[in-house]
Amino acid sequence: MSARGEAGHEDAFEPVRIAVVGVGYWGPNLVRNLQELPQAGPVTICDRRSEILERVAVRHPGVRTCLEYDEVLADPAIEAVCIATPTSSHYALAAAALRAGKHVFVEKPLADSAARVRELIELAAEHGRTLMPGHTFLYSPPVNLIRDLIHAGELGEIYFVSTSRVNLGLHQPDASVVWDLGPHDLSILLYWLEELPQQVSAISRSCIYPDTPDVAFLNFIFGSGTIAHVELSWLAPSKLRRTAIVGSEKMVIYDDTSNEPVRVFDSGVDLSDPQTFGEYQLTYRTGDIVSPRVDVAEPLYRELADFCTAVRTGTRPQSSAQLGLQVVEVLEAVDRSLALGGSVETVSSSSFRI
Amino acid sequence: MSARGEAGHEDAFEPVRIAVVGVGYWGPNLVRNLQELPQAGPVTICDRRSEILERVAVRHPGVRTCLEYDEVLADPAIEAVCIATPTSSHYALAAAALRAGKHVFVEKPLADSAARVRELIELAAEHGRTLMPGHTFLYSPPVNLIRDLIHAGELGEIYFVSTSRVNLGLHQPDASVVWDLGPHDLSILLYWLEELPQQVSAISRSCIYPDTPDVAFLNFIFGSGTIAHVELSWLAPSKLRRTAIVGSEKMVIYDDTSNEPVRVFDSGVDLSDPQTFGEYQLTYRTGDIVSPRVDVAEPLYRELADFCTAVRTGTRPQSSAQLGLQVVEVLEAVDRSLALGGSVETVSSSSFRI
Amino acid sequence: MSARGEAGHEDAFEPVRIAVVGVGYWGPNLVRNLQELPQAGPVTICDRRSEILERVAVRHPGVRTCLEYDEVLADPAIEAVCIATPTSSHYALAAAALRAGKHVFVEKPLADSAARVRELIELAAEHGRTLMPGHTFLYSPPVNLIRDLIHAGELGEIYFVSTSRVNLGLHQPDASVVWDLGPHDLSILLYWLEELPQQVSAISRSCIYPDTPDVAFLNFIFGSGTIAHVELSWLAPSKLRRTAIVGSEKMVIYDDTSNEPVRVFDSGVDLSDPQTFGEYQLTYRTGDIVSPRVDVAEPLYRELADFCTAVRTGTRPQSSAQLGLQVVEVLEAVDRSLALGGSVETVSSSSFRI
Amino acid sequence: MSARGEAGHEDAFEPVRIAVVGVGYWGPNLVRNLQELPQAGPVTICDRRSEILERVAVRHPGVRTCLEYDEVLADPAIEAVCIATPTSSHYALAAAALRAGKHVFVEKPLADSAARVRELIELAAEHGRTLMPGHTFLYSPPVNLIRDLIHAGELGEIYFVSTSRVNLGLHQPDASVVWDLGPHDLSILLYWLEELPQQVSAISRSCIYPDTPDVAFLNFIFGSGTIAHVELSWLAPSKLRRTAIVGSEKMVIYDDTSNEPVRVFDSGVDLSDPQTFGEYQLTYRTGDIVSPRVDVAEPLYRELADFCTAVRTGTRPQSSAQLGLQVVEVLEAVDRSLALGGSVETVSSSSFRI
Repeated sequence: MSARGEAGHEDAFEPVRIAVVGVGYWGPNLVRNLQELPQAGPVTICDRRSEILERVAVRHPGVRTCLEYDEVLADPAIEAVCIATPTSSHYALAAAALRAGKHVFVEKPLADSAARVRELIELAAEHGRTLMPGHTFLYSPPVNLIRDLIHAGELGEIYFVSTSRVNLGLHQPDASVVWDLGPHDLSILLYWLEELPQQVSAISRSCIYPDTPDVAFLNFIFGSGTIAHVELSWLAPSKLRRTAIVGSEKMVIYDDTSNEPVRVFDSGVDLSDPQTFGEYQLTYRTGDIVSPRVDVAEPLYRELADFCTAVRTGTRPQSSAQLGLQVVEVLEAVDRSLALGGSVETVSSSSFRI
Repeated sequence: MSARGEAGHEDAFEPVRIAVVGVGYWGPNLVRNLQELPQAGPVTICDRRSEILERVAVRHPGVRTCLEYDEVLADPAIEAVCIATPTSSHYALAAAALRAGKHVFVEKPLADSAARVRELIELAAEHGRTLMPGHTFLYSPPVNLIRDLIHAGELGEIYFVSTSRVNLGLHQPDASVVWDLGPHDLSILLYWLEELPQQVSAISRSCIYPDTPDVAFLNFIFGSGTIAHVELSWLAPSKLRRTAIVGSEKMVIYDDTSNEPVRVFDSGVDLSDPQTFGEYQLTYRTGDIVSPRVDVAEPLYRELADFCTAVRTGTRPQSSAQLGLQVVEVLEAVDRSLALGGSVETVSSSSFRI
Repeated sequence: MSARGEAGHEDAFEPVRIAVVGVGYWGPNLVRNLQELPQAGPVTICDRRSEILERVAVRHPGVRTCLEYDEVLADPAIEAVCIATPTSSHYALAAAALRAGKHVFVEKPLADSAARVRELIELAAEHGRTLMPGHTFLYSPPVNLIRDLIHAGELGEIYFVSTSRVNLGLHQPDASVVWDLGPHDLSILLYWLEELPQQVSAISRSCIYPDTPDVAFLNFIFGSGTIAHVELSWLAPSKLRRTAIVGSEKMVIYDDTSNEPVRVFDSGVDLSDPQTFGEYQLTYRTGDIVSPRVDVAEPLYRELADFCTAVRTGTRPQSSAQLGLQVVEVLEAVDRSLALGGSVETVSSSSFRI
Repeated sequence: MSARGEAGHEDAFEPVRIAVVGVGYWGPNLVRNLQELPQAGPVTICDRRSEILERVAVRHPGVRTCLEYDEVLADPAIEAVCIATPTSSHYALAAAALRAGKHVFVEKPLADSAARVRELIELAAEHGRTLMPGHTFLYSPPVNLIRDLIHAGELGEIYFVSTSRVNLGLHQPDASVVWDLGPHDLSILLYWLEELPQQVSAISRSCIYPDTPDVAFLNFIFGSGTIAHVELSWLAPSKLRRTAIVGSEKMVIYDDTSNEPVRVFDSGVDLSDPQTFGEYQLTYRTGDIVSPRVDVAEPLYRELADFCTAVRTGTRPQSSAQLGLQVVEVLEAVDRSLALGGSVETVSSSSFRI
């Protein structure tokens, strides 16, 4: 199944038997979608906290429960694991699963360092298994609609992108807002622009927890000339999910909280060549504004369908491990810049292609 | 007259006789306000372009017209000049006026370099004349209402400020968006926070005119710990004038385009001390939202009244030359950072106090 | 438990054993809330459509299922029924339940005619059982916050109320939009104003289904002088849930779709007595706007808690049968006006007090 | 010049010499536009209040002033008058001007009774002069854009129109809100729908001044089946200028206070014919939303241009006396309904065609 297209033969293969590891906060969403997905088979849930395991099991009749991860790994009936635990544990759990011959889906970010992501990618290649990060926004209809507009050239050259992802909460004591919210915007930018930023500079502040940034302003310069700004914060008077994409032909506002998530503005500046007296002639153009109809498909459902297809057919998922690696490479560059008070950092270009 | 309070004795002195220099785009607004102001006397307008001079004179019956600046300087009946010409000419026109013994009001920014601003300040001191930059927002009721909230401690510690000042147009062929729109936000930040940013980093792009940035993302770190982000652009799908001020006690949204320009959110995070097990306890607080009534006074009117008072009584205007200097010092630091692709630049601290 | 206050002793009594009758569209919401409610005991669900019954049972482990209503009535372990079937069946189902000695909760409107509602009220009295209509908005925090403002006199005299409840869909082939959406606004108006409208006039149109109004404009005049307008429609470009309450002291906007559901405007007109020349002096007052914090409690949960308390303790629920009767009396007057093209109809005042 | 099209030959005729009568509140807008209009010649202003006359003269250099209306009428150099006085004086001033052989433009409403409007129309015919009411919205670009959509059949059958025109103030001691704001919406409805309402019912309240309605809810039924609701009020927490036009094919929101005054929703309900089992099949359609670019022309300028053309060439202006009569006929029917507490009143159909 294509990540964006509608399923043609989604039940043409045997349902994949999956265990969800970690069912505290996000895991139950995976469980619910896997149970509704024809491409997935009976679901196992695994968590060390027995009371949480029990509670989720009650709400999802039919799941098998398991307190020990080792049992999951040892069970030949389980083909794949979906890891929804804190970021710091991603590497160890994913590596163990790959070594046990399981396919692996990991909630974003793939791991807490680029080096570890590279190890996981190598392990996956060695064992011939799928490794996929959960960059859910790559399956969001508005994100894909905008990607289509960009790739069709409708927006012209992309001058810049400016995005704000802020709200009040939820602070995480051991994770920076950059690593928590940042992967969303970075995966979207990579998916839209199909290039890595070359230079990164960023400032942040740890307002509530010491040494845990909860607000950050990130600046990016891409090789093509596109620049981007990303504002991330857990401290804000109201929720904002607003992205402006300004192209030479048209401009787009993407607002995930709105009933009209995509608005296309036929606006821009037309510049004629210098005239006799060397003066440029500018004309501002303000045309129709269109809010195209957007599908209401649940991104997570489509993402897990893509995972199952990758497992069964060996295709590369839209949210690929290579894209997941690039996201982490950029996050590391951001962290280096933050540590130096906003210095310009180069993103260590991965040898992998997106 | 206090810049913010209502006039107590506004006609207690002889009206100031003022010439407005440059009446193309912004100048007519000065003329209109000066004509309505009891503290100002008969207005002279000066512009080399006779047809523009004529057109403005027709709309403002009673003004005297003058094609040559030298005549203005030579006229002993004129006590002060208001300079509303392009930035590059500010220094020469202001210096000549000060030397001729006139008081000087200059549209923002005061001059195109900090060195030249310092020269003007010295000239003003030498000749005992008022030198005042036109940072109009310092006279805007919502800006002052927020300043009062900050200084009364209502917002608590200011964690960060994030602001967007974007719209479609108007490009200026010889001026960066940083020097055109930036002085507004910088003057507001200095006025609110009463401190200079210590470190600046910024990226920009010249999308339409070559070598003329029309979009810029500016990051600031202040000594107190406050950080700030300023987005400036002449390319945007819709006009945005939105500033979020996030404090430890309350948060404020300032939106100059809204019927409710100031919104105060009684929201925040309460963090208790580490408990037995070393874990912090977070509580999110979301209380009432208040849009306080804001006066509808025209900032420009109040600004020119402050200028007249400064001329007559020698008081320091709210929009002081020192603040104008600091704005230009920060702009220069931003330009240095832009030239180096976003490097961290230190603001060369002026010896003047705000 | 008070309908609005927080529960003090909510588990001080034996949980009520309830059967939900009709689990197609709305019924499952009742089931979910009853299962979470400490005041309610094991839940039975009853529906003739076995496949629907089965589907709901799977999602709500622990419920007992029952295909025949007669079994529910015959089961002495079931103390109360919640009827969530189409309006036309309310009377028969409720009457049978009351005769079988059950307490009865009926989704709004109580029945399809005032005569039948009166019969049900008499039956309930005869058998000493609670009869309660499901006017959920009486348990909505914003509705109660506004009621408190009105009753505390904060808004002054209520001049008028204007409300729009429109969206695209869902048409019902056998029910007018007046009987489907109207009970919401009528119950709110009665709850706020504590008086019945004396005169009703209304127009409507059946745009899609013949003889089934899907848009209606209702005008009401109350004895106190307050007037009200209610716009109801299943045909609208976007969802609107907007009520303006204009009082002599303050004005309120209630918008159920907004993050700020209640906004209080300290605005109004002050009129001094006629002066010497017989002229009134008007002053317009525009003060602060406050969005008070509103609890996020689920109205349905609070409503069912109130039902259980009424069953156990004999108290009158906030959403009383008398209020339900008055709603239907007004609906009948609206229908009479519609039939005559908008004539002024008097509401046949019920002998019951609210 | 066509009211909507751009001028082809606007200066093909001799400018019309016009006197503006009444320059207190609205008159100065007429003066300003007439001075900018190439089709209008030197402007005379006439008002009995000498200080007001003087003040307006100072702001509009070049106008001739006149304290006595009789002088205007006696002056052969004045070809036309624009009457901007209170409604009660319209009839007498307009009749005198027509009798003196002047062309007449009257601010809406044309007169305070349909009988008087008919007299004026007859007088105009007798003297071969243009009589034109100032229904400015007929020259508003968004109103015309919507008219074009309706007439091109883009919206399909017009099911209903719902409009709110409310704000805080400005009360007028001797005029109902129905006669003050109502002409705007009535002229727009007549212009769009090209039919008179057949039945009118309305309620109102006089909240501030006795016997002067300041809030009113008007219901209309048209012969074609279209129904309409108009809410008018000088008491409202915030300004609202919102009109929903719901058609069988598309729906439109017209909001005169928005940057996007017209929004076209490709939404609706598709109903298939009854199937085998007699059930209708409904499908809800929600497609793109388009905010078409709207010209920014000033309606008043275009209106006065249309008047000048009518004067010179004898064409019928878009805002015709016949339309002005129909507006007043509807207002009278509304007043009859209000007097009877909301009774259904028939609009006495004028013999004139729109």
